[in-house]
Amino acid sequence: MAQAQTPISFETSSDRYRHWRLEVQGDTARLVWDVQENWPLRPGYVLKLNSYDLGVDIELADAIQRVRFEYPDVRVVILTSLKERIFCAGANIMMLRQSSHAWKVNFCKFTNETRLAMEDASWHSGIRFLAAVNGTCAGGGYELALACDEILLVDDGNSSVSLPETPLLGVLPGTGGLTRVVDKRRVRRDLADYFSTLVEGVKGKRAVAWRLVDAVHPTSQFQTAVQRRARELARTSSRTGRGPGITLGPLAPRIGDTTVDYSTVSLSFDRERRTGVLVVRGPSGRQPATPDDILQAGDRFWPLLAFRELDDALLRLRMHEPEIGTVCIRTEGDPEAVHATDTLLLEHREHWLVREIILLMKRSLKRLDLTSRTFFAIIEPGSAFAGSLFELALAADRSYMLDDADGANAVRLSGMNGGLLPMSNALSRLQARFLAEPDKASRLLEHEGPFGTREAEEEGLVSFAPDEIDWDDEVRLAVEARAAFSPDALTGLEANLRFAGPETMETKIFGRLTAWQNWIFQRPNAVGERGALKSYGQQGRPEFDWKRT
Amino acid sequence: MAQAQTPISFETSSDRYRHWRLEVQGDTARLVWDVQENWPLRPGYVLKLNSYDLGVDIELADAIQRVRFEYPDVRVVILTSLKERIFCAGANIMMLRQSSHAWKVNFCKFTNETRLAMEDASWHSGIRFLAAVNGTCAGGGYELALACDEILLVDDGNSSVSLPETPLLGVLPGTGGLTRVVDKRRVRRDLADYFSTLVEGVKGKRAVAWRLVDAVHPTSQFQTAVQRRARELARTSSRTGRGPGITLGPLAPRIGDTTVDYSTVSLSFDRERRTGVLVVRGPSGRQPATPDDILQAGDRFWPLLAFRELDDALLRLRMHEPEIGTVCIRTEGDPEAVHATDTLLLEHREHWLVREIILLMKRSLKRLDLTSRTFFAIIEPGSAFAGSLFELALAADRSYMLDDADGANAVRLSGMNGGLLPMSNALSRLQARFLAEPDKASRLLEHEGPFGTREAEEEGLVSFAPDEIDWDDEVRLAVEARAAFSPDALTGLEANLRFAGPETMETKIFGRLTAWQNWIFQRPNAVGERGALKSYGQQGRPEFDWKRT
Repeated sequence: MAQAQTPISFETSSDRYRHWRLEVQGDTARLVWDVQENWPLRPGYVLKLNSYDLGVDIELADAIQRVRFEYPDVRVVILTSLKERIFCAGANIMMLRQSSHAWKVNFCKFTNETRLAMEDASWHSGIRFLAAVNGTCAGGGYELALACDEILLVDDGNSSVSLPETPLLGVLPGTGGLTRVVDKRRVRRDLADYFSTLVEGVKGKRAVAWRLVDAVHPTSQFQTAVQRRARELARTSSRTGRGPGITLGPLAPRIGDTTVDYSTVSLSFDRERRTGVLVVRGPSGRQPATPDDILQAGDRFWPLLAFRELDDALLRLRMHEPEIGTVCIRTEGDPEAVHATDTLLLEHREHWLVREIILLMKRSLKRLDLTSRTFFAIIEPGSAFAGSLFELALAADRSYMLDDADGANAVRLSGMNGGLLPMSNALSRLQARFLAEPDKASRLLEHEGPFGTREAEEEGLVSFAPDEIDWDDEVRLAVEARAAFSPDALTGLEANLRFAGPETMETKIFGRLTAWQNWIFQRPNAVGERGALKSYGQQGRPEFDWKRT
Repeated sequence: MAQAQTPISFETSSDRYRHWRLEVQGDTARLVWDVQENWPLRPGYVLKLNSYDLGVDIELADAIQRVRFEYPDVRVVILTSLKERIFCAGANIMMLRQSSHAWKVNFCKFTNETRLAMEDASWHSGIRFLAAVNGTCAGGGYELALACDEILLVDDGNSSVSLPETPLLGVLPGTGGLTRVVDKRRVRRDLADYFSTLVEGVKGKRAVAWRLVDAVHPTSQFQTAVQRRARELARTSSRTGRGPGITLGPLAPRIGDTTVDYSTVSLSFDRERRTGVLVVRGPSGRQPATPDDILQAGDRFWPLLAFRELDDALLRLRMHEPEIGTVCIRTEGDPEAVHATDTLLLEHREHWLVREIILLMKRSLKRLDLTSRTFFAIIEPGSAFAGSLFELALAADRSYMLDDADGANAVRLSGMNGGLLPMSNALSRLQARFLAEPDKASRLLEHEGPFGTREAEEEGLVSFAPDEIDWDDEVRLAVEARAAFSPDALTGLEANLRFAGPETMETKIFGRLTAWQNWIFQRPNAVGERGALKSYGQQGRPEFDWKRT
């Protein structure tokens, strides 16, 4: 596929947006889309009626990130459309039609992560989102509105909200729509069922009565109502920041044939073996000691830089290196310096910028949990698996720690392992690891200083601890064995084993909803030559295999 | 497929088992398998090494049901194998290989329901299950052991437990194995990951240390240890029943070309329109008034009979009528008689037999929730949507209630809608329906007498209430529209909308695990000509598309 050949950058900035405008005034941001038809990310389709592709969504994700870091005064974001009578027509169907299965899956995963990041911004940063739905709002457009705290819909006799994927395309609304309708907005399931089969959607008072939107207002009063509600939402914000913020500069990795190199992160590939190595380097040199120092350091502050780079590296891995199935995670540097940075973050975690940094670290680690590749953490002397970087080992499917003869190898916990970086299931990675021993995570967190290899193994902090005689063979054989298994079975295996314990709306979206959507995206009824997704907009009706499974 | 052509009966009885023996002595049942190689359910494969197919599992499900109803004295069931050094080799691979996608999915669903029925028997009836794993225990064999309360493994230097599906077959353990390993037995996720990739599995002390089994015993002491542990488990039972039990006689439906008729349930099909009608008739004539009467009535007691017949009808619908996508649920009879029966059940719900009847009703209704067909409840005058039969309307994707001119049409709640018939997510259907109004379910339960159509609609108990002018067209068009949508998209849609609210191990198994398994069961890496499932046991290695998705 051409898609896999030209690398996409997930980086952009407000001055380069084609499809969005971010306008900030005082405590209010307006995030306005006006998708440019003739700027699709890939040739072959036209982005009509504010329909979107990955390129549009990369800008959206960037804008939300910038509101958090660059505009600490913002308390409410109004999301609306510049197009008259059109809010959004949903994900672009022609784009979906021409995409490979892997592209569809990665596209949906990224858009899901972006919408969850909006909810994260509301729930944890106090940035409220108001969808001002000023026109027709279909499919992915409504799913975006669902990710907002509130939805106001214009009552113009025509504009509706809808999830027409099932009746029109034979697929599911793939960006959390079904889950959010019944779980977040708690729409009655029979009404949700009816709604999700209505091509024309639901509008006006019925949309309010069914809880699909929060209010409707006539066209003449719509803007006033939006402003009023935005003011009210802003007052519910717990956000304490005051400007100026910090600027998120470009990461600008150096891209080689088998390498992606950032300042603190490196990713390299062995395509023949289908393996990769992800290295994260700890902080070096003098580090900030106060929030003012952190503000001063801005986007060069190590945890912000390192976890932004990690995030970008994971996106590139997912999208550009589909055959790299097994990735060894290594760290380098001074574990004490990581621990000291963690301590600083913990001490000032109520400061708006520190809070944002911690939340970004959390989201990047969730991105790791949700990346469908095998990760093995490789812990050797000279590594820096301490505190927040030890989360990489906890996120990995397994960890191998060298039992070195001179006992120098060590890992270390910090308060950052205590719950500030939860997984999608709302548990810390330590809690999820020790489900069978509920008190163990807090007991381990009381441990002073590092754990040597034997201690780490006894306490269950690492999976395996071969000695120097066995180390090379054991690690090599584990990687080789893994790389030989069916990639699909591994995806399913990991998706089930990584998320033990409670489920949340977020895990339901990535577990239940996404897994079903992936199944449907494989089925001839959707993607076969006469399937609904393939034949939409063309002459004749789709042809179905009518067997229900 | 030949599979769809010869109807399978889900009915059997202990005297007809080929593969199992049920031996009851006092408070202990021994459920012993000795799968007969040459009695597969379908021609084309040999059931070696206690590998199983649907036929073996139908007997298992029947045996568990009979222990509940026919042997009220039983407190513990020992599950073991008659074959030497072989407990079970798992689901039969040749059977899976020759099966259609739909067959695999239905097979896995049924086996999952059977294992959950074992846990239901333990948790709600106090019948403990002890897996006496007296030999090699692989894949589905270990998944069956995982459904038991405890697992004892023989320590003979050879016998292990294993989940070799991923490394050998490129699929997942499809019967809850992954979920139960990390969620029920709370095996550490990295150890679970390693374990699930080991063809040879784990044995001896390591199996205990990793929580994969509860204990190991040398061959010479194994039987004694099993007996001892069975005695201890029996003492933890909360079961109060004393024999004699009641016999579950054959249901023996009359099977026509487009009908399946039981004494209280009828299922009929319009294959051209791909629609069906499921009718459940309420009790008539004199009904029992005391537990002794109920014992006397035995398997003819209406709720037991009706919900057994419903259960069997659903299994036949799933397996034999794959193209019947939309089913209208109707009821007939006297709603007051249903209500009176519910009152009797509620009053005596601590009686062992009444408890079993209520639990069976619960399981049959869960089977309805988990049946991947659209259900619309059609409520007209003369129907009996009261109490436990109103659960059918609550389980349906939508309900249509005729707003008749003379106001005779009505539905009614009973205490049976209050939580004794929970869904897989542990909520009552009323609670799940009114997630947005947490107090509403209990308020509605306080309502005396029936709800007329307008009242039922206002209270949200039914979806739509057309009047006599609109009724025929509205119902007909709803059914026609539904029957025209992609069957796959509807399966995904319903699987997401039916289970709002909390998730449990059970919903995780049917949501996350099953959805991923279904995806994998579609992928060429498993079922393609050179896929792992297809090529297992043949010359050469499978060929994979290495892209991770």
